[in-house]
Amino acid sequence: MQLSARNQLNGKVTGVEKGAVMANIKIEVSEPSTITAIITKESAEKLGLAEGDDVTAIIKSTEVIIGK
Amino acid sequence: MQLSARNQLNGKVTGVEKGAVMANIKIEVSEPSTITAIITKESAEKLGLAEGDDVTAIIKSTEVIIGK
Amino acid sequence: MQLSARNQLNGKVTGVEKGAVMANIKIEVSEPSTITAIITKESAEKLGLAEGDDVTAIIKSTEVIIGK
Amino acid sequence: MQLSARNQLNGKVTGVEKGAVMANIKIEVSEPSTITAIITKESAEKLGLAEGDDVTAIIKSTEVIIGK
Amino acid sequence: MQLSARNQLNGKVTGVEKGAVMANIKIEVSEPSTITAIITKESAEKLGLAEGDDVTAIIKSTEVIIGK
Amino acid sequence: MQLSARNQLNGKVTGVEKGAVMANIKIEVSEPSTITAIITKESAEKLGLAEGDDVTAIIKSTEVIIGK
Repeated sequence: MQLSARNQLNGKVTGVEKGAVMANIKIEVSEPSTITAIITKESAEKLGLAEGDDVTAIIKSTEVIIGK
Repeated sequence: MQLSARNQLNGKVTGVEKGAVMANIKIEVSEPSTITAIITKESAEKLGLAEGDDVTAIIKSTEVIIGK
Repeated sequence: MQLSARNQLNGKVTGVEKGAVMANIKIEVSEPSTITAIITKESAEKLGLAEGDDVTAIIKSTEVIIGK
Repeated sequence: MQLSARNQLNGKVTGVEKGAVMANIKIEVSEPSTITAIITKESAEKLGLAEGDDVTAIIKSTEVIIGK
Repeated sequence: MQLSARNQLNGKVTGVEKGAVMANIKIEVSEPSTITAIITKESAEKLGLAEGDDVTAIIKSTEVIIGK
Repeated sequence: MQLSARNQLNGKVTGVEKGAVMANIKIEVSEPSTITAIITKESAEKLGLAEGDDVTAIIKSTEVIIGK
């Protein structure tokens, strides 16, 4: 099944911690990858984003789905 | 400012495409990194996740914030 | 109160499991419904999405709000 | 690939509308399904959620990934 | 209909900008409010969060639903 | 570091509750602020959103990142 989600990072599980309802999973990602971020045009302009800029892609852990 | 978001991937902007309201930003990430994923305990058990498993971290592009 | 969220699926609670901070709720949905998905144009084109395609709508459980 | 995302609703595409950056996709879902919602324990208690309750599962369209 | 979403901020629309698929809405919120944030225990400990701390609640605009 | 996330609400921590994996953080926000919401054009039109409308900005607690 092909997914519409643009960001798919391959890696290895290095930690599994389970609570009563949730679980915290650690994944070591070593391959280089292209991250796609959809932000508002307003934000892109306020940050003055341009090719070559050094940036950080920030992702809340509750937004990460795991495929196996 | 320190952020609670666990996943912070450094990289370089390689594409900026603006529409009327949204913008599609491409970021080349080359450094290895540890991804944290919060999933349900139920999912961790159904996938039988364990250390050493080869997996894919899947992230929708609308969930990626950019820091500059 | 009318909501901007396009997807509102009526159903019956069939499970309530509480942890220290979170709760896992199961809802049986039987009515047919129209799901709206907002994805990138890029993804729509890479998947070659067209009317009549058989697809799966995938939603992380942390993204589901409950109304009662 | 098995996914950790609990909610996977099968259906048929009934609409594809593309903008400059985003696309609005409509999917007719007819099969009954079990929806999993992760909410705070606090919310489950404030809503007094219990088995048999009639509820609505509310999902923002930007949170729906499509598999094909 | 009562919602499980903990954060409900009342305000007045001060801007509506429509694109082909999406819309950017501005809302002036003046009432004081209590924001609930669910983060990982790990993050709460790394940030050393404690009562009385001055913090910023950060919310991506694609995560805001509007009720009217 | 400047963030693309449009909504940044300053406040004070008034509660920290930790479970095995997650934590529930309460933040008192008193300053007035402008909230940006990205919804579908379709939703903006169905709700008939216009300047001056009284509305509620609804945000699931799992979508709130904390900065300190």
